[in-house]
Amino acid sequence: MPLPTFSVFVATSLDGFIARADGGLDWLEAVECPGEDYGYAAFLAGMDTLLLGRNTYEEVLRLPEWPYPGKRIAVYTTRGGEPRHGAVFLAGPPLAVALRLEADGARRVYLDGGRTISAFWAADLVDELTISVLPVVLGEGIRLFHAPLPERPLVLEETKGYPRGLVRLRYRRPGR
Amino acid sequence: MPLPTFSVFVATSLDGFIARADGGLDWLEAVECPGEDYGYAAFLAGMDTLLLGRNTYEEVLRLPEWPYPGKRIAVYTTRGGEPRHGAVFLAGPPLAVALRLEADGARRVYLDGGRTISAFWAADLVDELTISVLPVVLGEGIRLFHAPLPERPLVLEETKGYPRGLVRLRYRRPGR
Repeated sequence: MPLPTFSVFVATSLDGFIARADGGLDWLEAVECPGEDYGYAAFLAGMDTLLLGRNTYEEVLRLPEWPYPGKRIAVYTTRGGEPRHGAVFLAGPPLAVALRLEADGARRVYLDGGRTISAFWAADLVDELTISVLPVVLGEGIRLFHAPLPERPLVLEETKGYPRGLVRLRYRRPGR
Repeated sequence: MPLPTFSVFVATSLDGFIARADGGLDWLEAVECPGEDYGYAAFLAGMDTLLLGRNTYEEVLRLPEWPYPGKRIAVYTTRGGEPRHGAVFLAGPPLAVALRLEADGARRVYLDGGRTISAFWAADLVDELTISVLPVVLGEGIRLFHAPLPERPLVLEETKGYPRGLVRLRYRRPGR
């Protein structure tokens, strides 16, 4: 079997932050709009597996409702603990993790969390990258891309601007 | 007279770099396309003055031909030296520089250079921001936004994708 595909779907500030320094996401509210999810539900419906960074996983656990029912869940972490929602904890080089996910039956993996995304980017395993750029400069925070990383070109697939000022950029890996 | 307006027109990588760590701009060639300037000539025609950072000014001086004939040129620098092309060297807080430019007759100022842009951003003097995002992750280099900076929202005015994968985003300051 080929490796599963790894897709990123993330919101950033214009200066490239995915969260405030303390993890805060309140600034996302500026583009909240009833009936508009900026393509998230359609994206999520196409994924069979989530691979989350540990911090992202812990954040999601704090939500009132588990947002990923029916999805295979893996957490990219070296820390221990008791997995919930059927999660498996995986560590090691991204390629080894990708092979393990493939063996478990994963075909389309939603990759989330800044460090996890950067690790898979560095290993050239990110196939698809959707970035929703919000109309704000945060000035500081947690970056999507943790420099230094290898240089790599992308192919723009689609761009779309929304009334609240969000711009969604969708890229794929060349040659996919 | 009101202060002049300050406009930025800049190309960045998807991870927010305006140049390689050594100042290199070779990666811009990936989107070069005969007859397509991504709106630059029209933007430049609307500006009467350029305010350049010192490094950017020195880079431009090395070009075979001076690209800004007929424009008022100011350089934001504390270093000395012999100005060329009628440039004036200005230092001090951005607001003082803006007042000086206004007194000199500047109405529409094209602001260029990472440090200069960040200094004017920090002083809330950037009125218009056009960012052309190239389809590449450089991984490291010189950033457009030098964190930490004050948080500030923007208003999206326009977004346009081009065949070579460049996406131009145009923002203005709220309330302008």
